[in-house]
Order: sequence, then C-alpha cells, then structure tokens
Amino acid sequence: MSVEPFDAVDVIRAKRDGGAVPEDALRWIVDAFTRGYVTDPQMAAFAMAVFLRGMTRDEIRVLTDAMIASGERMSFADLGKPTADKHSTGGVGDKITLPLAPLVACFGVAVPQLSGRGLGHTGGTLDKLESIPGWRASLTNEEMFAQLRDLGPVICAAGTGLAPADKKLYALRDVTGTVEAIPLIASSIMSKKIAEGTSALVLDVKFGSGAFMQDIDRARELARTMVELGTDSGVATTALLTDMNTPLGLTIGNANEVRESVEVLAGGGPADVVELTVALAREMLALAGQPDADVESALRDGRAMDAWRTMIRAQDGDPDAALPVARETHVVTAPASGVVTRMEALPFGIAAWRLGAGRARAQDPVVHAAGIDLHVKPGDTVVAGQPVFTLLADDGARFDRALEALEDAWEVGPEASFVVPGSLVRERITA
Amino acid sequence: MSVEPFDAVDVIRAKRDGGAVPEDALRWIVDAFTRGYVTDPQMAAFAMAVFLRGMTRDEIRVLTDAMIASGERMSFADLGKPTADKHSTGGVGDKITLPLAPLVACFGVAVPQLSGRGLGHTGGTLDKLESIPGWRASLTNEEMFAQLRDLGPVICAAGTGLAPADKKLYALRDVTGTVEAIPLIASSIMSKKIAEGTSALVLDVKFGSGAFMQDIDRARELARTMVELGTDSGVATTALLTDMNTPLGLTIGNANEVRESVEVLAGGGPADVVELTVALAREMLALAGQPDADVESALRDGRAMDAWRTMIRAQDGDPDAALPVARETHVVTAPASGVVTRMEALPFGIAAWRLGAGRARAQDPVVHAAGIDLHVKPGDTVVAGQPVFTLLADDGARFDRALEALEDAWEVGPEASFVVPGSLVRERITA
Repeated sequence: MSVEPFDAVDVIRAKRDGGAVPEDALRWIVDAFTRGYVTDPQMAAFAMAVFLRGMTRDEIRVLTDAMIASGERMSFADLGKPTADKHSTGGVGDKITLPLAPLVACFGVAVPQLSGRGLGHTGGTLDKLESIPGWRASLTNEEMFAQLRDLGPVICAAGTGLAPADKKLYALRDVTGTVEAIPLIASSIMSKKIAEGTSALVLDVKFGSGAFMQDIDRARELARTMVELGTDSGVATTALLTDMNTPLGLTIGNANEVRESVEVLAGGGPADVVELTVALAREMLALAGQPDADVESALRDGRAMDAWRTMIRAQDGDPDAALPVARETHVVTAPASGVVTRMEALPFGIAAWRLGAGRARAQDPVVHAAGIDLHVKPGDTVVAGQPVFTLLADDGARFDRALEALEDAWEVGPEASFVVPGSLVRERITA
Repeated sequence: MSVEPFDAVDVIRAKRDGGAVPEDALRWIVDAFTRGYVTDPQMAAFAMAVFLRGMTRDEIRVLTDAMIASGERMSFADLGKPTADKHSTGGVGDKITLPLAPLVACFGVAVPQLSGRGLGHTGGTLDKLESIPGWRASLTNEEMFAQLRDLGPVICAAGTGLAPADKKLYALRDVTGTVEAIPLIASSIMSKKIAEGTSALVLDVKFGSGAFMQDIDRARELARTMVELGTDSGVATTALLTDMNTPLGLTIGNANEVRESVEVLAGGGPADVVELTVALAREMLALAGQPDADVESALRDGRAMDAWRTMIRAQDGDPDAALPVARETHVVTAPASGVVTRMEALPFGIAAWRLGAGRARAQDPVVHAAGIDLHVKPGDTVVAGQPVFTLLADDGARFDRALEALEDAWEVGPEASFVVPGSLVRERITA
C-alpha cells in the first residue's frame, strides 16, 4: 500500500473553493493521475473546478511542468544550430506548416514540426502529407535528429512518450465538457511543445467561425497565457492572432492542400497563404536571431522548394509523384452575378470532413483525394453560373450531406454589400 | 447501438455555463448514468458544475424525481393510518430515532424509519440497535408492512432498491469533492425519503461543530431546500434547525445510546434528548393530523416503553437482555474545579469512532460496547478530580488515539466564563 502525500479530495476542494493549489499538491495530482492513483472521475471533477475557478499564472506553469515531467523530454542543444517551431490552434484549409518548415530551414534553422492528425472539421498536417506517395510520418528519434542536423526541416508524428499525462487528461476533458478552459488548453499545447525541446516557438492562435476560439478576446487571452507559459519555461515565444472566419487559401482537404503548398513554395499560391507563411517565418527567424532575414527571396529563388523536395525525399516520399485525384467531383456555381460576400470556415470544414477528408474517430482513415477546391474567395466578383467551388470525393453519395452543411455557408450579393475584412494577421503578442 | 436523445457533454456544458438544465435532459442524465451510458467521469464533472453553479428549485425537484424513478417506490396508502417519518442530517450522540419511533406510534401513526449504518464520526441507528441481542435490521417488505399496520413503529435497513441512482451518485460525490453541494445533498436525502412512501416528514437539520453543516445559515438553506422539495413532491414536510455543537445526551456509542434511549422511554433521560424527542414527535404528529397530542404523557405512563418493547421483539430482539459492556474503561477527570464551559461534538464523535464505536469503511464491523459516557455536560460544575467522562473500548490500546482527539475538545473554567448556549431547537422551517 502506497502512502500518498496528498488526498485527492483535498486537492479538488482547494480548487473548487477558489484557492490556488500549492505547487507540490498540483505536481502530485498530475503524477498520481498518470499513475492511476487519482481516478478519472476525480480528475474530471478537478478539471471542471479549474474550468470554473481558473488558475493563476504560477499554477498554469506548474501544471504544464508536471505534464512535461510525466514523460520524456527532448533536447536539441547538440544540434549546433538554433531551433524554431510553430503551433497553430487549428483551422480550415490551414496547410501553413507544409511551406513554412522548409522555408525557415533555408536560413540555417532547424524546424522540428512534430504534428498530429486531424479530428472533426480541423485537418491534420500528417494526413495532408500522407497524400504524397511513399512519405512516412513516423521517424525514430535518431532519424529525426539526423534530419534536423543535416537538412533542417522535419515534419513527423509526435512520439507517444511526450507528456503522457496530457494525453490522458485531454481524452478525459474531451468527454466531460472541460475542453475550453484556457489554463487547460494552454498547458496541453505548451506541455507538448516544451517537451519537444525547441528553443523558439511561434503560436498561430486563430479566432473566428472556423477556429476553436470564435471570439478574438478569448483567443487573445489564450495567446497571452501561452506566451507567458513559454517564456516562464525558457522558450522564446510569440503569438500571432489570425483570422479564421474564411478558409485559408483555395483548398480544403489533403492532396489539394499539398498541391497548394507546393505552389507557394514555387513562388505562387493564394495571397492569404503566402501572407501567413511569410509572417510566421519572419517571427520564427526573429526568435532564432535573424530578424532581417529576406524570407520572400527564398520563395522566389527556389531555395524553399529545394528544401521541401529534400525533406519529402528524406522521409521516403516522392515529391514528383502524382497526387491522388478524386473519383467524383461536383461543381457548385453562382446563382446570380455579384460579389462573393462570405464563405464561412466552419461549414466548409465540416463539408470537407463529410466528403472524407477528415475523420470522426481517431482510428478512422481519411480519403486523401477528398475535400473542396475553391475557385473564388470573398471579395471576388462572379457571374451567374460561374463555378464557385468543387466538391471532391471518392463516392458521389457523400455530396448530399456536404451540400447540406454548405447551405447557408456562402453568399453572392451586390458589390456594395461586401465588407472588406480586417487583416489576416490581426495582432502580435509578445512576452 | 442505442440512440440516446441527448449528448452527455452538451448537458454538462449547459450546467457548466450557468444555465438551468431542461427537465428532459436532467431526467435523461440521471437515467443514463444509472444505466452506465453516462460515465463516472462525466457525472463527476456534472456534479462539480452543479456544485459551483447551483440549481433552481425546479431543477432540484426534477433531479430528485429522476433519482426516485431509478428504483422502486413504496406506498403506505393501504395501511389505513397516517405515516410520519423523521430524518436527521447526522450528529454525535444522536439516538433520537430510538425513543421517537415508538413514541409517535403510540398515537396511531405508522412510523417507517428506514435507517442506515454509521460512517466516520457519525453514528448509525442500525448499529446502535444491533447492540440488542437477537435484533435484526433486515425485514422483507411484507414484514415491514405488517409491523407498520399491526404495531406502528419500524426501524429497519432501507432496501437496496430505493433510488439506486442516488446510491451510485453519492459514492461518486464522496471521492470527487462534490459532497457539500446543497442541491445534491437535498436531492440525495429526499429521493430516498420520498421513495419510502411516507406522507409526512420531519427533518432534523443540524448545525454546529459536530454537524455536516457547521454554519447555521447553510443548514437553514439546506432545510429550506428540503422542505420545498418535500412539499413540491406531495410530502408534508417541516424542518427543525438544531444545535449540534455539543454531543446529544450523555452517551456516544452504540449500546450506551440504547441504554439512554430506554431511560427516555421510561420517563427519564437527559433533558436535551427528551427535549428533542418531544419536539420532533410533536412535529410528526402535527403533520399526521394531531397537533395537540399529549406527547409527554406517553413517556410518563409507559405507553412509549410498551411500544418500544413490542417493536424490538417484533424484530427478534430481546428488550430485557443485558447489553454488551466494554472490557476496558478509562476515566477522565477534571483538572481543576469550576464549570464545564464546552464539550465539542466533533472531537467527541471522532474519539468514539476511534474507540471502535464507528467504522472507517462501509464493510468494517463496529464494537457495540465501545464509546464514551459523559458524566457532566457544559454548564455543570465540577470539582478537581471528579470524573468528566469515561472512554469505553474492548481494547485499551485504543485509548491513546481517542484521548489525542479529545485534547482540546473540552474545558473547565471559572463559572463566569460559561456562556449559556441558545436553545437546542433553534428554528422551525415550514413550507
């Protein structure tokens, strides 16, 4: 029989009654939960108390540190070059990691992008890259280190050994209505990122209808909390607040997002994707000591494309192979002439998911060719009958439910009714 | 695969965000929890949300009704006489049920006292009665009905079929820091009492150091909530707020509490036990249609004692058998002459528990002869060396830890330092 230094009920009560949980008690409850001594119902009650009572900056730091301490911690100190990482809170059409990692690596910085798979309407970076024939997401630690040292960019699956307490807690929060608490979101994201060992981190915190945080004030609070947390933990951290009311770029899916990313690496691509890629690259390079790096030149002169091709090949992918193409397509056209006044990110994300691009359960496969290609974006003029977007699927039976999601998701109106949105990158949050 | 009408996370979120949970959703979550579809972590998160957000009077009524609906519901409509029940929120030395049930039954009222066992420092009515050789707590429903009809008083174990949802929820609350929420306490107590089928109910809601609610304002809130709940559910309900800062009577334990109860039934006994027994009997009889019953006469003239003896015999107990006696005793004396200024109920309850009168886990046995006999009460004068109380145990090794609990629990001071406490029955709460 183990003698525990704390009683779970006492720790739950301390938070329930609005107090700050002392550091040793907070470290203990995370550790005891990981060991199974503190049970799922106890941790669920604690998470709800945190949700409703909040946490101090110190408590969030300790909680994060305790989750990091529950697993392995990587270090890139021996690489001989700076490291910079990016994390996005997730959006619709968000393929930025794909062009960003090779672009930043052009400047001699190691970019360890340990990524995940999509769930629900939010796409996953690994799912997108797995559209490329041969490409593999799983690397050993040795392979990852060698690739960071020799090439610079790595996009691969996060090892299961990082912050297991967070994994266990996240699964619990997901079913107990305790996901949206800022201290819990911040510590969940940052525990993994800090455990990954990067020395610099740029956060792309999204707000709007297609984002986890719809409200910009809540997104700002989350961004500030995470920037404080990174800073308190010795990771140089900044955040950009970016607009996720409209899908990013002209593609939502997997293979089509890879294609668009390659366009950006070739010096083209949609303006919003280029803008965000460049903005995030600048932030990462500034934190890595190169505030004046000429990011655009690396896109123009082919260096970023070379880094991409080398990165894909290093993980057994063929950058020249044809990407999968959808067996069935369905074109949606403008009902009238006018200007596209809005395209809501969330329903477009849901529609792409229903087409097969995403998954409902972690164990489900995705259809790499499925998704949506947009032909116009808000602000563009169209004439009646002009294609607005194309649905892509392997099975035409999927179109109905996708179209259902899109019913009220977009609009064509008179030119005067279009309200020019604010800039994509709305705010910059620093320590 | 069952198709559920609600999603647990949505219901949790509704309460978490401060809203009232709609009736159908609340009924569903209780039912689904009982069926195991809503998991323990989900219900723990919901309970914490209820703890911190509260519940409306309507929600509490629905929650209670849903817990009643989870199991069997008894009815005493066919008895041909009124029924009245009493529930105490638990105290130290609280043996009132023992003299009360036969006393009230003298007036032609059926008294179905479905009782529990003690846990922690609070004693259990069944544990006390099991001191009587041969007495059995478990009756079939048929035996209970026959005894109510033919004799009037029954004190027996509550069947396991009453409000199983409450049983499951209480076990969960106990380990998740969600016990002390008034909506949850009130619905837990009242679901069982209403399911038992009584038509009248008097609540003895205790406040003070030995009570579950130390604060009188919280006790009043609990009492009001339960009176509303009983009334809303068609049970005539009143509550008394009673002082539990000092142990009730002169005995804390099991066999010694039976002895004291028999003294009360014989027309004697400590003034506070008599006062509370009479006050509760008057309330029960008033609700049963006899507001002017001469309660004291039934104690004076032996009718209550006869009813007690018949009741004990009906459950195979021998009212004339010798009660168990402790093998070891330890007398504590006054360190100086003066007046006993205080005796704190909680530490005396803990000491009796440590002596073996109570249990730490539901499956532990109790020592029937263990406990504490008080020789004086606050307000009594003592001379140095005079016995103040006697510890009773079957094993003298238990005295040290009991004395430890009692170290700062009582005091002898100058006469002028004694503050006369307020009356035992402090307030009366009616619908």
